Amino acid sequence: MLKSFCIVMISTVIVLSGSLPAQSGTQDTGRVVEIDVPASALDGNLLGTPTTQGAAVYLPRSYDRQPDRRFPVVYLLHGIFDDYGTWIGHFKVPAILDRLIADANMPELIVVMPNAGNRYGGGFYRNSPVSGNWADYITKDLVDTVDGRFRTLANAANRAVVGHSMGGYGALHLAMEHPGVFSVVWAMSPCCLAPDEDLGFGNEAWRRVAAITGPDALQDLLAYRDFYALAILGIVTAFSPDPDAAPIYGDFPFDIVRGEVVLDDDAFDRYRDAFPVRQVRDARENLRNLRGLGMGVGLGDQFLHIPAGTLAFSQRLGTERIPHRLDLYAGDHRQQIGERLENIVFPWVGERLIVAE
Amino acid sequence: MLKSFCIVMISTVIVLSGSLPAQSGTQDTGRVVEIDVPASALDGNLLGTPTTQGAAVYLPRSYDRQPDRRFPVVYLLHGIFDDYGTWIGHFKVPAILDRLIADANMPELIVVMPNAGNRYGGGFYRNSPVSGNWADYITKDLVDTVDGRFRTLANAANRAVVGHSMGGYGALHLAMEHPGVFSVVWAMSPCCLAPDEDLGFGNEAWRRVAAITGPDALQDLLAYRDFYALAILGIVTAFSPDPDAAPIYGDFPFDIVRGEVVLDDDAFDRYRDAFPVRQVRDARENLRNLRGLGMGVGLGDQFLHIPAGTLAFSQRLGTERIPHRLDLYAGDHRQQIGERLENIVFPWVGERLIVAE
Amino acid sequence: MLKSFCIVMISTVIVLSGSLPAQSGTQDTGRVVEIDVPASALDGNLLGTPTTQGAAVYLPRSYDRQPDRRFPVVYLLHGIFDDYGTWIGHFKVPAILDRLIADANMPELIVVMPNAGNRYGGGFYRNSPVSGNWADYITKDLVDTVDGRFRTLANAANRAVVGHSMGGYGALHLAMEHPGVFSVVWAMSPCCLAPDEDLGFGNEAWRRVAAITGPDALQDLLAYRDFYALAILGIVTAFSPDPDAAPIYGDFPFDIVRGEVVLDDDAFDRYRDAFPVRQVRDARENLRNLRGLGMGVGLGDQFLHIPAGTLAFSQRLGTERIPHRLDLYAGDHRQQIGERLENIVFPWVGERLIVAE
Amino acid sequence: MLKSFCIVMISTVIVLSGSLPAQSGTQDTGRVVEIDVPASALDGNLLGTPTTQGAAVYLPRSYDRQPDRRFPVVYLLHGIFDDYGTWIGHFKVPAILDRLIADANMPELIVVMPNAGNRYGGGFYRNSPVSGNWADYITKDLVDTVDGRFRTLANAANRAVVGHSMGGYGALHLAMEHPGVFSVVWAMSPCCLAPDEDLGFGNEAWRRVAAITGPDALQDLLAYRDFYALAILGIVTAFSPDPDAAPIYGDFPFDIVRGEVVLDDDAFDRYRDAFPVRQVRDARENLRNLRGLGMGVGLGDQFLHIPAGTLAFSQRLGTERIPHRLDLYAGDHRQQIGERLENIVFPWVGERLIVAE
Repeated sequence: MLKSFCIVMISTVIVLSGSLPAQSGTQDTGRVVEIDVPASALDGNLLGTPTTQGAAVYLPRSYDRQPDRRFPVVYLLHGIFDDYGTWIGHFKVPAILDRLIADANMPELIVVMPNAGNRYGGGFYRNSPVSGNWADYITKDLVDTVDGRFRTLANAANRAVVGHSMGGYGALHLAMEHPGVFSVVWAMSPCCLAPDEDLGFGNEAWRRVAAITGPDALQDLLAYRDFYALAILGIVTAFSPDPDAAPIYGDFPFDIVRGEVVLDDDAFDRYRDAFPVRQVRDARENLRNLRGLGMGVGLGDQFLHIPAGTLAFSQRLGTERIPHRLDLYAGDHRQQIGERLENIVFPWVGERLIVAE
Repeated sequence: MLKSFCIVMISTVIVLSGSLPAQSGTQDTGRVVEIDVPASALDGNLLGTPTTQGAAVYLPRSYDRQPDRRFPVVYLLHGIFDDYGTWIGHFKVPAILDRLIADANMPELIVVMPNAGNRYGGGFYRNSPVSGNWADYITKDLVDTVDGRFRTLANAANRAVVGHSMGGYGALHLAMEHPGVFSVVWAMSPCCLAPDEDLGFGNEAWRRVAAITGPDALQDLLAYRDFYALAILGIVTAFSPDPDAAPIYGDFPFDIVRGEVVLDDDAFDRYRDAFPVRQVRDARENLRNLRGLGMGVGLGDQFLHIPAGTLAFSQRLGTERIPHRLDLYAGDHRQQIGERLENIVFPWVGERLIVAE
Repeated sequence: MLKSFCIVMISTVIVLSGSLPAQSGTQDTGRVVEIDVPASALDGNLLGTPTTQGAAVYLPRSYDRQPDRRFPVVYLLHGIFDDYGTWIGHFKVPAILDRLIADANMPELIVVMPNAGNRYGGGFYRNSPVSGNWADYITKDLVDTVDGRFRTLANAANRAVVGHSMGGYGALHLAMEHPGVFSVVWAMSPCCLAPDEDLGFGNEAWRRVAAITGPDALQDLLAYRDFYALAILGIVTAFSPDPDAAPIYGDFPFDIVRGEVVLDDDAFDRYRDAFPVRQVRDARENLRNLRGLGMGVGLGDQFLHIPAGTLAFSQRLGTERIPHRLDLYAGDHRQQIGERLENIVFPWVGERLIVAE
Repeated sequence: MLKSFCIVMISTVIVLSGSLPAQSGTQDTGRVVEIDVPASALDGNLLGTPTTQGAAVYLPRSYDRQPDRRFPVVYLLHGIFDDYGTWIGHFKVPAILDRLIADANMPELIVVMPNAGNRYGGGFYRNSPVSGNWADYITKDLVDTVDGRFRTLANAANRAVVGHSMGGYGALHLAMEHPGVFSVVWAMSPCCLAPDEDLGFGNEAWRRVAAITGPDALQDLLAYRDFYALAILGIVTAFSPDPDAAPIYGDFPFDIVRGEVVLDDDAFDRYRDAFPVRQVRDARENLRNLRGLGMGVGLGDQFLHIPAGTLAFSQRLGTERIPHRLDLYAGDHRQQIGERLENIVFPWVGERLIVAE
């Protein structure tokens, strides 16, 4: 049963990625360009992730017609096991942007959709000696490449970051821990804000991962597409990496003693302290300095830690007097994403970006 | 020092109420009508509150031109010591509505602004044998009068309630405890969601009120305009009324024994249970049935219980999986209200009302 | 891995049960009597649980020597998959009691250790049309039998209930929902106070149980001793029983749709509302009326919901101003139980019982 | 009304202090010695607090008979406006200790009762350039003097700290921020763990203090014995001192603008961060290293922040997996203190101290 469950969850990627709509700059729509980005921040990662990464860039309709005009930029961060094809093929972002711009519900802006996946689904947009410095990749390699290659308004006031699921986590993480790059932030169904529910140790996938002692067992998880086990590998290599601990290269927050979970106090402390709900206080100045901070989550999200974590995160933000907007809506992890991008997120982000040269 | 503090807080009413802008239905704007509403729900109240109450009604520009058209209705509930003059004179609601309708940022709708004050500042839109049945007044007397006298879309799907401060409390209270009248609800800086901070017993005004044993002492509080003492009298007579307990007519949640607060368990239980943060679970079906539920509060609100209570209320809503929007913004109790009405609240409410006959 | 894990967890029962120490009333120690108790409260249960249940009764050293003396009674409720053999053979309760009485660290009292297991590990001391009315069995059948057969002080003031794990839950549940039988309550590492962590839907065992559609699959879980799956079957049949829903006979709080958990709002509400953290408010009078309420839990408990749930339960008790003692200690689910019974729990319980005829 | 309230609260000191029971070392009881302690840690304080402080020392009955024996030591920290006379005259500590030792319910130990008051009621056992380094006074000046003058077991393993109200705060503060001196800690009705309820800005005394601009107004508060205003002066000078800001010498967490509280973000952050509920995480190693940590509070405490703060503090301790005991009992701020010292606190502390040379 588990196997079929996982296949279902990952299948969207296989079906949807890679198919870009044919568009021309002479029409009344924008167009999408695919670029390769040198990712020196990933140099030396231990997971074999390539150090050139693809990205898709939406250029709005006036980009070609007004060759001296510069545009604000929104970065869209995808979820685990997704890539930019998910934004384009599944959520139909280019058509959404075309409509919003045509109806003047959003200023014309560039939207950058990077790839950020690896063998475990993704590096969680964090810096790690094992999975690579994905935070640096986004905030330096990618931003520099985009600002160098396109006519952007190249400053934080005109740069927003939006993400879904792992990418929602990424948007918040970058805002908290890598300030000064983005000034407007929205997290859609952000994963991993608190290590509870299906992300807690009650999930038996933790035991399956903890039981891995050699490369063969690891290969089995990959072959079986054991979703939670892979996600946990992604989390461990991104949140508590240990380059000396082959084959997992991660520091486990507990030991298995006679078949039972036994917490390792120091590792458990470090593990929990790495989650955003416990980092709000230290990051409060960075968060207060944002010009826009928002988040939304479906109350029926299949990943049960996501609504709980978002609610807890909002509470911590409130306790530290950090302005933000929280939307709790009827819906699940993915179905409302396209509609919310169009009706809520892009207009809200567009209002808060400064569009001036 | 206390006295001058209170005078400042109440002064807006004195200056602003009663001055209606001169408007004509032939212009491209709406117009405001003042009406008298028979308030049988207030019959027999012990505070001498009149059983006819005034209200102001904004009719949109097409109201006169399209004599067969019916309109959705938004009810605006004012704060303690305010009246409809606050909406009109201070927050400039008619001009806001004119602009929103002219720019098509909101459908044309009727806006009803009732008076709901009494000698203690207000009845908190609750039913009480002491202060009168203000919930019934709004949901029955007033709604019936408006639906009878104006061309409304006379059903819950086309009726919203919005309030500020005491009125924000009122909007939520009516949604929770008097369901079926309104389907869209927004609370602005809602007071009294949780009995903490300046609304808790740490506020010495509780002692001043508890010390009142005769009508003269009560008269002194009124004469001095002791803001918190009057607000507490309003709360006690609305939340824990006791018609037999002259002169305060309220059941106190504690006793003063040798100068110290001693909790009375039963009364304290009843008192705390009457606040919205503790009523969410029982009211969850009513709240889930709403088509829109939102709230916003300034993090620098002078009434310290208001941001704390709003945050706690949102948390309880989330725990019960009740969809809603929470805005925590930089600002205080009053300064952003006009701007937020225009940019956030009215457009959001308008989108959620069904405009169809 | 999972299988061996489960065998370890259940093995204590197999090794330890049934071996009573040989004791004689002429020594300076107490003695243990095994009795059969008619369990009419279990009549008609759908799990095939026998309607006669065994119990062990410790009689203190003076019970035989002072034939007119009556004694207070402590009921000890065992954990899932345990039976009274666990108290006697594993935790060595008779020897503990002998020492405490010899050293005058506890008054002489009778200790009753009922069996309360079934094919899923236990009925959680709750009334259920599927698993039987275990609450009635303890508070009526058993108490009546004990009071009828032994010289007890047969009133609530002289009756305590103590339990471990599922039995800790049971002790609190009986205090909250079946008042008037026990006046002193202690819960040791109580399970199931809140439906989180390993007891939440993040535990894949929920999916395994939800996937059962026929008796064969159910039989497989039993044969494999899938610990969490069996515990969940026990919980579902005790907390949300449905006598018409063979073969599981339970109402599931979610559906599995295309391999994913989809919450069923009504069932989920009912399911969560059945847990003690959400029942404190309604049961506050019962809890305030106790003469002693205590609980302890090891911070390294293998069942991760247990410390979290105990902490949350204490918080709710505090919010409702219910006196109690909370001990959070370094330790795990079982290792400290004997030591804590001797040093903390029995002396604390003994002090609070009224020893008078 | 306020004035009489305050007089009641402070009156215990006036009546009780100074009267030591006449005792002789040849009896079967301990004896109390009064000593002067050089308090160099208070040098340069701005409140005129003397740099020699008194303390009372209870020596147990065997102290004189066994001239080579060394004893563990318990330090008792008094509450605001109290002094060691409160322990001796009001709570009858020497007689309690005599009984406990006579009945072997506690090992023989030395109990040190320092004075720690100043013109605002006390320095909260904190280091402050305004009120003096009271933490250093206790942990260095006093401990060194006691270890030098009496036959103590002069190490942390044999040293406990217990306090009431401000002293309960002090016991926890010293454990968290000045580790390595005490290994066993008990806080009785500890004040000031969280800045809420009567300790929050809802308390109008904050406004009275904030309004002080010159020495005369300050003198008035002292003359009127305005309890909360004085306590707030004590808190401000101890928690957010500013030696340059005469006459209050404190950094206020808010401004009064047109009669209203306006939070100063930086000062408010600093103010709130100084309270124990927000310091648990950073101090977790210190707290986990204790051999005993306990706290108790009456649910009917007149100072409403005390039960709420103790509950919140326990919750934070639990979240950080710090072992401790929490007792919530029916009772108020003072009445149960003597009884609890005898039945709970001293025996519990005595069990946890190592009595060995």
